[in-house]
This record gives sequence, C-alpha cells and structure tokens, in this order.
Amino acid sequence: MLAQLIALDWGTTSLRAYKLAAGGQVLEQRSLSSGIMQLPRTPRIINGQECTDGFELAFDEACGDWLDAQPDLPVIACGMVGSAQGWREAAYCDTPANVAHLGNSLQSVCSLRGVDVHIVPGVIQRSRLPNVMRGEETQVLGVLQNLPVEQGADLLIGLPGSHSKWVEVADGCIVHFDTFMTGEIFAVLSEHSILGRTQQRGASFDGEAFDRGVQVALSADGEIGPLSTLFSARSLGLTGELSATAQPDYLSGLLIGHELSALANVQRRRRNNAPLPSVILIGNAQLCARYRRALDACGFAHVTLAENATERGLWQLAVAAGLITPTPSR
Amino acid sequence: MLAQLIALDWGTTSLRAYKLAAGGQVLEQRSLSSGIMQLPRTPRIINGQECTDGFELAFDEACGDWLDAQPDLPVIACGMVGSAQGWREAAYCDTPANVAHLGNSLQSVCSLRGVDVHIVPGVIQRSRLPNVMRGEETQVLGVLQNLPVEQGADLLIGLPGSHSKWVEVADGCIVHFDTFMTGEIFAVLSEHSILGRTQQRGASFDGEAFDRGVQVALSADGEIGPLSTLFSARSLGLTGELSATAQPDYLSGLLIGHELSALANVQRRRRNNAPLPSVILIGNAQLCARYRRALDACGFAHVTLAENATERGLWQLAVAAGLITPTPSR
Repeated sequence: MLAQLIALDWGTTSLRAYKLAAGGQVLEQRSLSSGIMQLPRTPRIINGQECTDGFELAFDEACGDWLDAQPDLPVIACGMVGSAQGWREAAYCDTPANVAHLGNSLQSVCSLRGVDVHIVPGVIQRSRLPNVMRGEETQVLGVLQNLPVEQGADLLIGLPGSHSKWVEVADGCIVHFDTFMTGEIFAVLSEHSILGRTQQRGASFDGEAFDRGVQVALSADGEIGPLSTLFSARSLGLTGELSATAQPDYLSGLLIGHELSALANVQRRRRNNAPLPSVILIGNAQLCARYRRALDACGFAHVTLAENATERGLWQLAVAAGLITPTPSR
Repeated sequence: MLAQLIALDWGTTSLRAYKLAAGGQVLEQRSLSSGIMQLPRTPRIINGQECTDGFELAFDEACGDWLDAQPDLPVIACGMVGSAQGWREAAYCDTPANVAHLGNSLQSVCSLRGVDVHIVPGVIQRSRLPNVMRGEETQVLGVLQNLPVEQGADLLIGLPGSHSKWVEVADGCIVHFDTFMTGEIFAVLSEHSILGRTQQRGASFDGEAFDRGVQVALSADGEIGPLSTLFSARSLGLTGELSATAQPDYLSGLLIGHELSALANVQRRRRNNAPLPSVILIGNAQLCARYRRALDACGFAHVTLAENATERGLWQLAVAAGLITPTPSR
C-alpha cells in the first residue's frame, strides 16, 4: 500500500514520525528522542552536502529512508518545532480556530533534501491572561473530526501533561482553553522542594494515597488552596499519618484534585450551573488514568479516552491544506 | 551592666545569639551561618576535650566567650535546633499554646562546657491537615507579651518566609495557624521551572509588576487558582505584555496575592463575614514590605510590623521556665 503523507509530532523532548496511507491509515511509526531541545549533533551527508544543522539531522533520521523510497511524499509537522526556538516559527492563530483555519496557515521550511516541511501553527487565546498551545490543537482537531455530531455539542477536551490544557469546542472550533502547570509543579516540588526530601518512590501506583490527596483538595480543608494544602504532604509525614512511599501519589492526587476542582467551578460558572460536560482525555495512558479517577471524584460523569489523536489531526490538516487528496478510509 | 540570659535563635541556615540583660535588654548580638544544616566541622578544644560535634562547635563559637566571662548564665534556644535533625528533639506542644505552657516544656541538653541549653518546643495543631511550627511560636509569644490588652482581641500574626505562617491568638494563646509554602514555591519555580527560563532579575523591586500579579490573583481571572494563573507569567511574556525583568516580581505578586486572597476568604468564613482582623507582621523587612502592599490590596486595613520578636519571646519563655528572675525593664 502506497504512503500518502509523512506526519511529524515534534515536541520539546521527542519526535514521533508516522507514514500514513489513504484515509490516514498508519503504515509505520517511529519514536525518536530528537525533540527540539535535544537535537542530534553528529554531522552527516544529506543530499551530497555535509550537514551539521540539528533540525535537518533529526528530520533525516526520522524519515530520510521513507523519502528515499517516495521522494514526492508531502510532509507535515506539529508541536514545538514551530515555536520561536523551533525549525521555523509558525505564528499562533487566534481562537476560534478550526481545521480549515489552521490548514490555511501552515508555515513551510525547505529542507536540504528539497522537500518542504509544512508546520502547523499553535493557537493563541488573547485575553487579560493569554493562553497558548502548540501541538495540542492538532490533537483536538484529530478528535473532533472523528466524533458523531451529537457528541460535539457539550464537550470538554482534556490534555494532561506538564502543562495540561482544557479545551472547549463548538462547531468544530477551539473556542476557549485553560492551562494548568500541574505536571511541572509536581515535578519541581518532588525534585527540588522540602517535600521531595521525605518522599520515597513506591514500586507501583498507590491508589489509596492518590484518592486521599484528591479528597483533601475537594474538601472544605481544600478551600484554602494548594499553596497551603501542599504542606500537608510534609506534616502528615511528621505525625506518622502518611508513609514516605505514599507521599508522591498523595501529592499527585492533591495537585490534580486542585486542578479539577478549579476546572469544575469554572465550568459550572460558565454554564450557569448546568450539568458538567462530557470529557475526552488525550495523552499518556497512565496519566489519563489518574485524571479519570479524579474527574470521577469531581462529578464529571462521562469520561472517555481518545486514541491516535495526533496522526488523525495531522492527516486532517494536510487534507485541509491541499497537500493530499482526501480518500475515504476503507 | 551584667547579662542575665543567653538567647539563641537557631534555625536551618543561621544561628543568632543574643546576650540579654534585665528586662530582656539586648547587650550584644551576633549572627552566624551555623544553622543546623551547615554546622562547623573544624575540631577544637572545648573544656579541655577535643570536640568534633557540630552543635557543640557552633554553640562554642556563638557564645563561648560570653560563658567564659559569666559561666552561670542560663541559655535558651528556639528553632530547628529542637527538631528531629537538631541537637536534641523537643517534642511539639499542642495548640492552644502559651508562654507558661511552652516555658514548662523546655527540653535540656548538657553541653561539653557543663552548661544546660534549654530548647523551646515547637507547636503542633492536630487536625485532618496537621500544622507545625518551630521558632515562629517564640516570635509570636514575643509580640503578644508586648501588646496592649485591647489589641490582642482581634488579631492575626503573619510570619512571611519560605513557609509563611498565619497565627490566630486568643487570651495570650496560639489557638490556630495555617501554613503556605509560597516562598519555597516561588524559589523552585524561579530556579527550576520553565518560568525561570525567561525571567531576568531586575536591579530593584518592580512594584508595578508586583501589584499587577496581586491584582490578577484577586480578580475574577484569579478564581481559577494559582496552578493555572502561574502560566500567565510565561504567556504574557510570549505576547510581549510582560518584560523579562518584570517577570520575577509579577510571579511574586501573583503567589502572595493567591496566598492572601485564600487567607482573607478563610478569615471571613471563620468570622461570619465580620471585618478582617488587624495584622502584625514579623520577619525580613523587604519581604514584610511586599506582604504589607498585598495585604492592603486584599482589604486588611490595619497592618503593623513587629520588631525584636524573637529575643523578646526567648526572654519571656526563660522567665516562665524560672531560668531567670523577672526584673522590669528600666
């Protein structure tokens, strides 16, 4: 089966490459550690020239052989590769943003091979506290295109990660989103704060400790906010009520609980206390499992997981940009 | 004028020594870097014995010459020196705690010189989310003893720091307190998170950026909580609305604003919406100036700064413990 598109999900610490056939079917996929902050450095010959540029080197490693076999394959990429620190900056598109809008705003960079790499812009929400995303917009669009119409009506899309995003959609558009730095805050507190000193990583996920953290965030005690409740990860240790191995998952539950409690409050306010929307989660399976557990505790009743969101989004954007002719999947 | 007491404020990173005369008057004071996590290591002869113990060495450096001159001087110490990692653990006293209660619970360690060092216990508030303090209890008691009676009635004592404490008092007792990890979170985010990467420390305090951060925390945008608003320190930079040199003080204002907004809400709830209490701040002058600015924005109308709280508290506790005979200050 002939390939029709090379699709790259190129972030800060990783680069995933997909060779896609008609309808976006995945023929082959690869995962490299060549994110834009850790590009390869060993020079190599590309198209007869000695090359030292990290972006060219990573691109060649990721899909040089695919292009050798089919030199006319179009290439599309999303993620931090389009940031100011990336290969070529693709300026943010404003909300509301949809597939047609973003597909018409791709930024191209011509590689040493002579192949154009088409980079998807991020999305910006201009408000008193602006919000930005890069890469997540592609995943959201990938999910939206595969939804039955009735499901898109009252939906919140969650993308847990270092900086989790919560995206509201309407009529196939990204209309509003919020960012929470929960994952990065968990990491820096565990590695660099006094809370990390008494933590001991357990062999497996401690669901009881996680749920306890979530419950504290949702309780009346949690109303004082995370800057204060965080200290309980230490004080409960001092009083012998929380073991060293339970502390990491307690802290994780506490932080995710505060994130989702704030999210639920914001959603209730925006909806004038109408029921909370359905949620679709996109991302790492283990992290999504934690969020699902905490969403349930927060009263979000309908939660599902999306799969293959990135490659689907990249396919849709390539179609919208006219890089390929849409052919229905078999 | 003869000394009557040696008082030590012995924390994690510093050791302050006071030589006090009748009424708690300060005759001499010293500041050393020999906190319990950075004790001296060079052996020396103490009382005819070669000594390698870090606590003994620090103690000797801090006040050995004062004891040579007046070997009978009693010694009292507060702070982390009484923790499990300290010289001798002084078990926490429960709230409500006052001078008499703590003064009767000193823990002694006999130094190589033969002099007893009397260590003040910390205070613990046992609740679902327990809270602990060590050192701050002494400062609070030092402030309380010097208050006109009518001022003690409706009062909140704030101790900004890595872990700020907010202490409610009644009838000379510490009855309730909350901890916020604001200072440590500011430090780890600035040093280890993505927010630090675009920050540039300015030459002086940027009051405008600080106030802007406070206002965001207090605004409707701030209701989503610090895990989310923190990201604005980055996104406002990306959109050119916040310069690199303004980012540190904006982040500081944002975090302190979230702390005080949560504190004001908790206080209003506990007081059934009665007016906010008067505040007395204890601590580093520059940090207290930031808190004073933000307290004002939060609607705390009466804010004053306390001075010499630690040495006054240690004096009162030594009197309560019977280590010295109280003589009124001239």
